[in-house]
Amino acid sequence: VTNDVRSFVTDHSADLLADLDAWLRIPGISSQPGSRADVIRSAEWFADACRRAGFPIVEIWPTAGLPAVYAEWASDDPDAPTVLVYGHHDVQPVDPLELWHTDPFEPTIDGPVLRARGASDDKGQLLFHLLGLRAHLAVTGRDNPAVTLKFLVEGEEESGSPNFEALLAERRERLACDVIVITDTGMLAEDIPSSVTGMRGMVLAEVNFHGPDLDLHSGSFGGAVPNPAEAVARLTAALHDADGRVQIPGFYDDVLELTDRERELLARTPFDESEFLATSKSRALAGEAGYSTLERLGARPTAEVNGIGGGYQGAGSKTIVPSDAFVKLSFRLVANQRPASIRAAVEAFVAEHTPPGIECRIGWEADGVAPCLVPIDTPAFQALSRAIGAAFDTDLVLPTREGGSGPEAAIQKALQAPMVFLGVGLPDDQIHAPNEKVTLSMLYKGAEAAAHLWGEFAALGRAGLTS
Amino acid sequence: VTNDVRSFVTDHSADLLADLDAWLRIPGISSQPGSRADVIRSAEWFADACRRAGFPIVEIWPTAGLPAVYAEWASDDPDAPTVLVYGHHDVQPVDPLELWHTDPFEPTIDGPVLRARGASDDKGQLLFHLLGLRAHLAVTGRDNPAVTLKFLVEGEEESGSPNFEALLAERRERLACDVIVITDTGMLAEDIPSSVTGMRGMVLAEVNFHGPDLDLHSGSFGGAVPNPAEAVARLTAALHDADGRVQIPGFYDDVLELTDRERELLARTPFDESEFLATSKSRALAGEAGYSTLERLGARPTAEVNGIGGGYQGAGSKTIVPSDAFVKLSFRLVANQRPASIRAAVEAFVAEHTPPGIECRIGWEADGVAPCLVPIDTPAFQALSRAIGAAFDTDLVLPTREGGSGPEAAIQKALQAPMVFLGVGLPDDQIHAPNEKVTLSMLYKGAEAAAHLWGEFAALGRAGLTS
Repeated sequence: VTNDVRSFVTDHSADLLADLDAWLRIPGISSQPGSRADVIRSAEWFADACRRAGFPIVEIWPTAGLPAVYAEWASDDPDAPTVLVYGHHDVQPVDPLELWHTDPFEPTIDGPVLRARGASDDKGQLLFHLLGLRAHLAVTGRDNPAVTLKFLVEGEEESGSPNFEALLAERRERLACDVIVITDTGMLAEDIPSSVTGMRGMVLAEVNFHGPDLDLHSGSFGGAVPNPAEAVARLTAALHDADGRVQIPGFYDDVLELTDRERELLARTPFDESEFLATSKSRALAGEAGYSTLERLGARPTAEVNGIGGGYQGAGSKTIVPSDAFVKLSFRLVANQRPASIRAAVEAFVAEHTPPGIECRIGWEADGVAPCLVPIDTPAFQALSRAIGAAFDTDLVLPTREGGSGPEAAIQKALQAPMVFLGVGLPDDQIHAPNEKVTLSMLYKGAEAAAHLWGEFAALGRAGLTS
Repeated sequence: VTNDVRSFVTDHSADLLADLDAWLRIPGISSQPGSRADVIRSAEWFADACRRAGFPIVEIWPTAGLPAVYAEWASDDPDAPTVLVYGHHDVQPVDPLELWHTDPFEPTIDGPVLRARGASDDKGQLLFHLLGLRAHLAVTGRDNPAVTLKFLVEGEEESGSPNFEALLAERRERLACDVIVITDTGMLAEDIPSSVTGMRGMVLAEVNFHGPDLDLHSGSFGGAVPNPAEAVARLTAALHDADGRVQIPGFYDDVLELTDRERELLARTPFDESEFLATSKSRALAGEAGYSTLERLGARPTAEVNGIGGGYQGAGSKTIVPSDAFVKLSFRLVANQRPASIRAAVEAFVAEHTPPGIECRIGWEADGVAPCLVPIDTPAFQALSRAIGAAFDTDLVLPTREGGSGPEAAIQKALQAPMVFLGVGLPDDQIHAPNEKVTLSMLYKGAEAAAHLWGEFAALGRAGLTS
């Protein structure tokens, strides 16, 4: 079967390129109010592409902002699992335009890559799905897929998915599924197939310390009244011990430690320290003792200072005891930490570190984002691993962890199904930056993997997926 | 003699009031370029007043900025010590003008007080000297003072004395003296005569920590590279232990501890905790364990955070690892700490607290200001104490300490003579604020004390003053 899928994909790769060329010309930048019509046109283009691919149900779903596309194709197999594929049709802005070597909305093939805004994030990845689906139908000889497919393609992901949770809630029954496939991520390298197995969640806090009701002369009052800037520094310094371990009581209570197998696989992930330092323009590695950089970034929660301020900010000096000071903190969470518990733990910690005479106010940014995790021993991940392995002719698909998070946790929370990540972006795709590209061979591998994946899921059946 | 001095002062108080009324009408605000002519007029007015008082030598001393007044009256006694009296003829700005109840340059007597800008700081205090000198001459029957008097009256004190050190260096020979009397301070209360015996010095530092060369996404890099904002917080937090004791090695090495007698006298200084909290609009006392608030403010060195900053400063959140962070620190010094040693100690401490991967840069504001101290067992202070005691009919003159510092350390350094503080301002004089006033009875006491002081110094003689 492998060769049949590959042959079909190879034989029809021109169709994928033609689709890419057409769709990438639509500048659907969701964060720019002036691009609203283009984002709608982008949704309509993809809806039409789904119809051409054979989906019997294709709908444009309006939101309070920009529309999503929904496509559904039921399997005639009564035991077929239902798969929800998530992606997005909007793209990032293109500034600074002068750094682009080609027009961002004039798709340009340059040897093994195609350059255009959205080529990798996320239009290319959605289009490999359409080709993969055709390959799946061709090699199985079916006139409907072996799994019931539902595509949910958002139009506001690049502007923070402000209406997505409402859409999920509103359409929850239509979106019901047995497994979720996220197609908006990447792999480690062209020859190192991998899959995201975790995304960190987050809570964001701003702690404000108020001392004297006005800035005081430090000669007349310094050393005799509480200084909120010093208090903020002491609070911030208390967040970690010398080993980089977060000191908030209970912070690690719900953390699911990496299994031995996960640590072993993560250790096999190529990581070039000097390249990481060059990318981060940093001069040293740092972080929690006892963990590798990849483990720190993907599998360990953090407390990070995003901003600190208080007192005199200008040039030179001003000898005051400041009235106010603040620190902005972000906490990255991993499974199974819950934003609400972390907020409570942070509040208790801050209260404990508020000195006498200092008034404290904590502001929280929304409710926070839960982390999500794909346990590597689940049937869904095993099936994904086999499908990717078949496309890349390997037994080893490395699990990776993402440091940040998108709307994935919201999808999982709303739909309560296992989730896997099938994405074929590469680290050098320059998504969100000038000269975005996609490597065409990765799109073909993605199409193959998708074709195999529907077969794998069908073979497991609904019961097998959730066992 | 006491009664004679008092009678003379009482009988001639109208002269002082007339002088005050004339001089206070001249708005010599040194920090306002537009007031340059008024500051010069103010200098000329005081020079003329000195001539009227009998000084045979009166000069206007130009500087690179605004002029000082110098007046000299030699004693005919060959053993007479030479006394340098320091004050300033310039005044603070008057903004916000709308908060004044009377015109700041329309001197207004309101019962026991006279309101005008400069009434207490420092014109009233210089004028009590002229009356005191007349009283001294009258009661001793001399036609020249029993001590050689030199008045140095600066014109830029309220704008930071930018040209004063140069003036001291240029005129050092003319200014040579056996004792320095600073007349620009105050007493604890109308019925609690006191004298400043220490002024804290200062060094000012800004520490800049540089981490990554650009702000990084905290999801992709947070927890794996050094965060300069956290490093600045840790450095700042390390400055003090839980007892408020500065942790910089060597910081206290040169500190002259309070003597038992000084602590005893300081403890007799009235201090109203709730009033101090109300004035400082603070909710708690804080500081170095083992010392009272007055000791903390006057006799103990401090490390104070004047400003801290780094990373995102706007509303809401931005999930970054900042590239840069800073802390602005002021260190108040007490005798016998030296600014240069403290700078070296701070530099070593900062170096030790700069984590791997963080680049550190320390900026120093000028050379710093040395502390100054009046040992209470010196003949000069004992003489001052007797003179003030005679004016206030008491044996007890409380030594006080000032938290901040003016140009006094520079004077002492340039002239290498013992220094005492004769000043009759009161804590509620509102100097530097709207509705500045002086309490007239304090000016009369000041005149009496000055008259007594010249007799006391003359009785000691040159040798007795420095023994």
